[in-house]
Amino acid sequence: MAFTLPRYTSPDFNSPFLLTAPPAVFERVKQAAVAPEGYHATSIFPEYLHMSRGEWRLAAESRMDCVIVLEPDGSLAVKEFRHLKVGDAVALGRRENGEDGIYVHSGGFELPSAICEKFAFRTQVSRETSFSIDYDELYELLDYERENGFILWVLGPAVAFDKDARDAFTAIIDNGYVHGLLAGNALAVHDMEGSLFGTALGQELYSKTHAVMGHYKHLDTINKIRSIGSIEEAVGASLISDGIMKATIQKRIPYVLAGSIRDDGPLPTVIADAYRAQDEMRALARRATTVVAMATQLHAIATGNMIPSYRVMKGGQVRPVYFYSVDMSEFATAKLADRGSLTARSILTNVQDFVVNLERGLLKKCRSNAG
Amino acid sequence: MAFTLPRYTSPDFNSPFLLTAPPAVFERVKQAAVAPEGYHATSIFPEYLHMSRGEWRLAAESRMDCVIVLEPDGSLAVKEFRHLKVGDAVALGRRENGEDGIYVHSGGFELPSAICEKFAFRTQVSRETSFSIDYDELYELLDYERENGFILWVLGPAVAFDKDARDAFTAIIDNGYVHGLLAGNALAVHDMEGSLFGTALGQELYSKTHAVMGHYKHLDTINKIRSIGSIEEAVGASLISDGIMKATIQKRIPYVLAGSIRDDGPLPTVIADAYRAQDEMRALARRATTVVAMATQLHAIATGNMIPSYRVMKGGQVRPVYFYSVDMSEFATAKLADRGSLTARSILTNVQDFVVNLERGLLKKCRSNAG
Amino acid sequence: MAFTLPRYTSPDFNSPFLLTAPPAVFERVKQAAVAPEGYHATSIFPEYLHMSRGEWRLAAESRMDCVIVLEPDGSLAVKEFRHLKVGDAVALGRRENGEDGIYVHSGGFELPSAICEKFAFRTQVSRETSFSIDYDELYELLDYERENGFILWVLGPAVAFDKDARDAFTAIIDNGYVHGLLAGNALAVHDMEGSLFGTALGQELYSKTHAVMGHYKHLDTINKIRSIGSIEEAVGASLISDGIMKATIQKRIPYVLAGSIRDDGPLPTVIADAYRAQDEMRALARRATTVVAMATQLHAIATGNMIPSYRVMKGGQVRPVYFYSVDMSEFATAKLADRGSLTARSILTNVQDFVVNLERGLLKKCRSNAG
Amino acid sequence: MAFTLPRYTSPDFNSPFLLTAPPAVFERVKQAAVAPEGYHATSIFPEYLHMSRGEWRLAAESRMDCVIVLEPDGSLAVKEFRHLKVGDAVALGRRENGEDGIYVHSGGFELPSAICEKFAFRTQVSRETSFSIDYDELYELLDYERENGFILWVLGPAVAFDKDARDAFTAIIDNGYVHGLLAGNALAVHDMEGSLFGTALGQELYSKTHAVMGHYKHLDTINKIRSIGSIEEAVGASLISDGIMKATIQKRIPYVLAGSIRDDGPLPTVIADAYRAQDEMRALARRATTVVAMATQLHAIATGNMIPSYRVMKGGQVRPVYFYSVDMSEFATAKLADRGSLTARSILTNVQDFVVNLERGLLKKCRSNAG
Repeated sequence: MAFTLPRYTSPDFNSPFLLTAPPAVFERVKQAAVAPEGYHATSIFPEYLHMSRGEWRLAAESRMDCVIVLEPDGSLAVKEFRHLKVGDAVALGRRENGEDGIYVHSGGFELPSAICEKFAFRTQVSRETSFSIDYDELYELLDYERENGFILWVLGPAVAFDKDARDAFTAIIDNGYVHGLLAGNALAVHDMEGSLFGTALGQELYSKTHAVMGHYKHLDTINKIRSIGSIEEAVGASLISDGIMKATIQKRIPYVLAGSIRDDGPLPTVIADAYRAQDEMRALARRATTVVAMATQLHAIATGNMIPSYRVMKGGQVRPVYFYSVDMSEFATAKLADRGSLTARSILTNVQDFVVNLERGLLKKCRSNAG
Repeated sequence: MAFTLPRYTSPDFNSPFLLTAPPAVFERVKQAAVAPEGYHATSIFPEYLHMSRGEWRLAAESRMDCVIVLEPDGSLAVKEFRHLKVGDAVALGRRENGEDGIYVHSGGFELPSAICEKFAFRTQVSRETSFSIDYDELYELLDYERENGFILWVLGPAVAFDKDARDAFTAIIDNGYVHGLLAGNALAVHDMEGSLFGTALGQELYSKTHAVMGHYKHLDTINKIRSIGSIEEAVGASLISDGIMKATIQKRIPYVLAGSIRDDGPLPTVIADAYRAQDEMRALARRATTVVAMATQLHAIATGNMIPSYRVMKGGQVRPVYFYSVDMSEFATAKLADRGSLTARSILTNVQDFVVNLERGLLKKCRSNAG
Repeated sequence: MAFTLPRYTSPDFNSPFLLTAPPAVFERVKQAAVAPEGYHATSIFPEYLHMSRGEWRLAAESRMDCVIVLEPDGSLAVKEFRHLKVGDAVALGRRENGEDGIYVHSGGFELPSAICEKFAFRTQVSRETSFSIDYDELYELLDYERENGFILWVLGPAVAFDKDARDAFTAIIDNGYVHGLLAGNALAVHDMEGSLFGTALGQELYSKTHAVMGHYKHLDTINKIRSIGSIEEAVGASLISDGIMKATIQKRIPYVLAGSIRDDGPLPTVIADAYRAQDEMRALARRATTVVAMATQLHAIATGNMIPSYRVMKGGQVRPVYFYSVDMSEFATAKLADRGSLTARSILTNVQDFVVNLERGLLKKCRSNAG
Repeated sequence: MAFTLPRYTSPDFNSPFLLTAPPAVFERVKQAAVAPEGYHATSIFPEYLHMSRGEWRLAAESRMDCVIVLEPDGSLAVKEFRHLKVGDAVALGRRENGEDGIYVHSGGFELPSAICEKFAFRTQVSRETSFSIDYDELYELLDYERENGFILWVLGPAVAFDKDARDAFTAIIDNGYVHGLLAGNALAVHDMEGSLFGTALGQELYSKTHAVMGHYKHLDTINKIRSIGSIEEAVGASLISDGIMKATIQKRIPYVLAGSIRDDGPLPTVIADAYRAQDEMRALARRATTVVAMATQLHAIATGNMIPSYRVMKGGQVRPVYFYSVDMSEFATAKLADRGSLTARSILTNVQDFVVNLERGLLKKCRSNAG
């Protein structure tokens, strides 16, 4: 059963209630980065603003906890508070049913009843939940998205700690399933330490023996990349000859390495400013149709915050955005899954096994499709 | 690199210290199930008793936290306190270096230095430890043990909750990698509910949809097996036609289902008495050369308590016993790994993925060996 | 604000639907310990059976996953399957709305809307949930129950590992807040090792230094109690002169120590047979009005299984039964809280701190009430 | 038993081995932010450099994973790689025993043998470790440090989620036990939402009822503070009239709010640049004599990275720096404790209970000292 997109149904703007709804109200920003009193904050759902009698306009590239700005060209921009400029026209109103000229459309996608029921029990996902169907559906989804969507991966450093996991994710990149990558300094350092020295934090990737002076391997990796100037140059010079960063760069996949206070180094190309990093991440998030976040609370929650439940494709088609989080702890996945979205799924396991399983499932499909 | 048994080196009984050691002292039990003051308690290591000048005798089927009884035939039995009978001759002495005629030989196996170093860091096993080599070594080990050893599995109920995991473990049984099975009532009930109704606790195994009146599936399963008389009869009558219990019974694999206060039912053949269950478990534990405990703290710790670090094979050869524990929580695996043994390993992951990976790895080996 | 019992409202048996409901149907047991096809299984809620036109009878001492037997004296006994005798009259029917003459009354208690709302979010209880109000309400509740109810405690061994926690729980017993105690062999052994040697598993309770030959302390404790005959005799002889078991026995508090396959020893008075242990536990569970389960999955789930959401007091008053579970892991408390009951609460913390906080809160109340 | 500082013993520089050690070698930085090949990386221990025959100089304000720069004034600065300037003289050498003119002194503090033994088992800290002595020692320590040291707190947002915890930590500040505070945007936002609306993320702090339009409370808080200009101005204008931030500002306690990609807003005074935030954090870390990190992996690990095991006080006295981490998960505390330092301790519990217990313990001491 190949994956098919669920159909999207627009709100019935001819319903009496919406027909008589007032137009949305906008107020100008008076102080930079401060929203006017009574601003409307966005959700993850499609939001329509009543522009003029009968014309409801969809905010196209949305995310939660932002405000809607009516741009001079008539489009609706979903902006973080910190990006508000004096004079921006911000939508006001906190009722989501149209009474303030704003309609939040949380039920637009026709989902099979099985999924709805699953949703009812979503919060009970635990290590004892059976995940066979989630793997199978994910294979189908990623296969579809490889051709038709934009698959954004969010990686914690643990993906680079294990030989099989690092190899598997590299193969997933090489086979076209990665369109964007979000991570931190540590993922890139560990991965390149693997290429330079065959170790991660000084421990051999496969044998786990501790290299002599192993604790220097980490710092030497950073120092070497700083010395050569960039990860791209290190790959270009074949200094970095295998692994996740090399595959990413050779496939010209856009990536963001966001800085954090936990970083050593950092590597060049890591973005020091957390909010500029958010902006770069959101540039990829706007394009994402499926997100897979693995073994990182910081980057996964940061990404989850900026991923809406839908995307407007070229031609205006509205489709869902899928969000998978993979982690070992119920606490972490509950935080991530707590988005009230039918399209968020959690898998509780060690990311090493997840990636290895995933690669096998995807590549078996590749072969059977080719055969 | 195929698996080879590490060589065992007996203690040097000609060392001056051991040559002058006194003979072991035994004292008779005066009150049933009570050891005499000053009793010696066993460890997981090979223990030798100085019987008479120069003759050191090895306690053959040992386990920790028991006492050593000199049997009338001259053999040394390692007995639980509760099995002590009035008149039993119990070894006394708490020094383990020979001074009391007892020598605990903790360093008998020549282990590669890599493993020793790993051991040094054993307590630091976490979800971020790389496990590639552990999987590979486990494939080699189980392949060896299938022909030459006795592989004892300890299963938590979660193995039966997921379709792929249940299928994978059934295949592992069918391919000869299971020589004994320890579990509780819940594993057997969930597994047979899967065969009877396609559900586990009322939820469909694969689709996860909740069956109508689903909460009755669990109780109906127990009631049906009680009605037919035994799991064996249910399998014989083809009432139970797939899954773990069916494969176990058809392959005539010895198994113990130990009762617990958490049980519904219980199923027939579940052993109600915790200590009789321990005895039955130990009967299999005495034969085990490798133990794999998955997703159960109760049964895993119970089994771990009765598994020594070595086994004396026919012909007198002493070989190590391997103990793997698989769990999602550092807390659980730390409890299990805390045995001071070089041959205990932990893998932190979801047992579903572990079993699926394992089956793939083992069966790939099968095919490549056959090819 | 002192605690007050929520009022119970019986079902409206004059509603047209219930007035026309058929009488409950009973079928005789033909095979011991096997329920007749179509048996009705109980829930945690009050269940009424339609006995004859207009007479609905409440099953008084209920628990989930059992069957209802019409006793010769006309009362309704809620029995475990394994206790069914040939000839027992078992209620049939799986519809809970009266259509089968069975009415399951899940909404009998008037709960403040705040609690209902909290219930809606109950599954989201995590380590980041604020627990101030839960502590305060628990102080009020236990104060009320000390005089008017039956407080049943379920203890994991960790309560005896820490000096302050052990002292605090002993004070809670001494001050009358404990009416029944459920635990396992380990709790009693660790607690009495504390009294005999000042250690737990060989580690000094307060300083945490490892006693010389410390690993023998545990076995010596068991052996000594087995030698003297019983915990009661050990307390009577002042061999055990402080701690939880001593306080329990001196206050003549009924307790059950249920055996498990993980046990060393066991101590005398530990019940070896898991299902006889269940029976003894249920004898206390029938009387319980509040249950507090701390740091034990095995005993907490076992107890939770046999605790209904209500109790019928002398005089026929129906009141709720409160169930608190305290554990470190979301996984464990989710399993425990998953009872669909408004009166189940979870607190996520280390049981050491919980007990210490609780004792302070309760005794401050004692003093202020006395003052 | 009041707290006393353990004595520090300098290395024996008259030992033949150190007497014949070569002088430390320095090499100039040629590329900004890149260390010369063979650089020496610092540890958490006191490190002495052999400057000229017989003169060993201690690097005074150290931290791990940095390089040692010989400043023009002859002092030794411990610098992050990214701060290296062309021309800086960086110490070379990777042997720590003096052979490279560098001596790492890991055994300088005379610790009681009990602590050393505890250290041996440090990695086994779990939820079942007894923590009574750790609390008591921490009360003594903080009491000493209030007068004689610099207590630096690292706070996760959960401290502000619970009424009692928030009140307790505010009291700890008011009583002088807080000399510096490190946190993120979320802690400050949640805390001030508590003051403005009595909620945290829209849920009432005490009753846990969900406020109407509750999800706006968080964003409104940020918007309001951005509008008024700074947290200081909000406190000055009595807009923020209780809680952690108010107490911190009124006591003129230095604090750093480090930005992260997970932030909403952010609040003004949150430092956007991760590495400038590191610099500000390290400015406080240099002064710290005790650090307590609660319920935050990101900030706790970031701080741990920059905290050495010792501090050189005015007058040249070398004293230890204590590092406590409090968290719910063995995984998190193991990561934090894994510093190889005798002075790192972990307490596994819910930070709410920890703070409440701590405040009670500290203030009881206050009163008894005053009495």
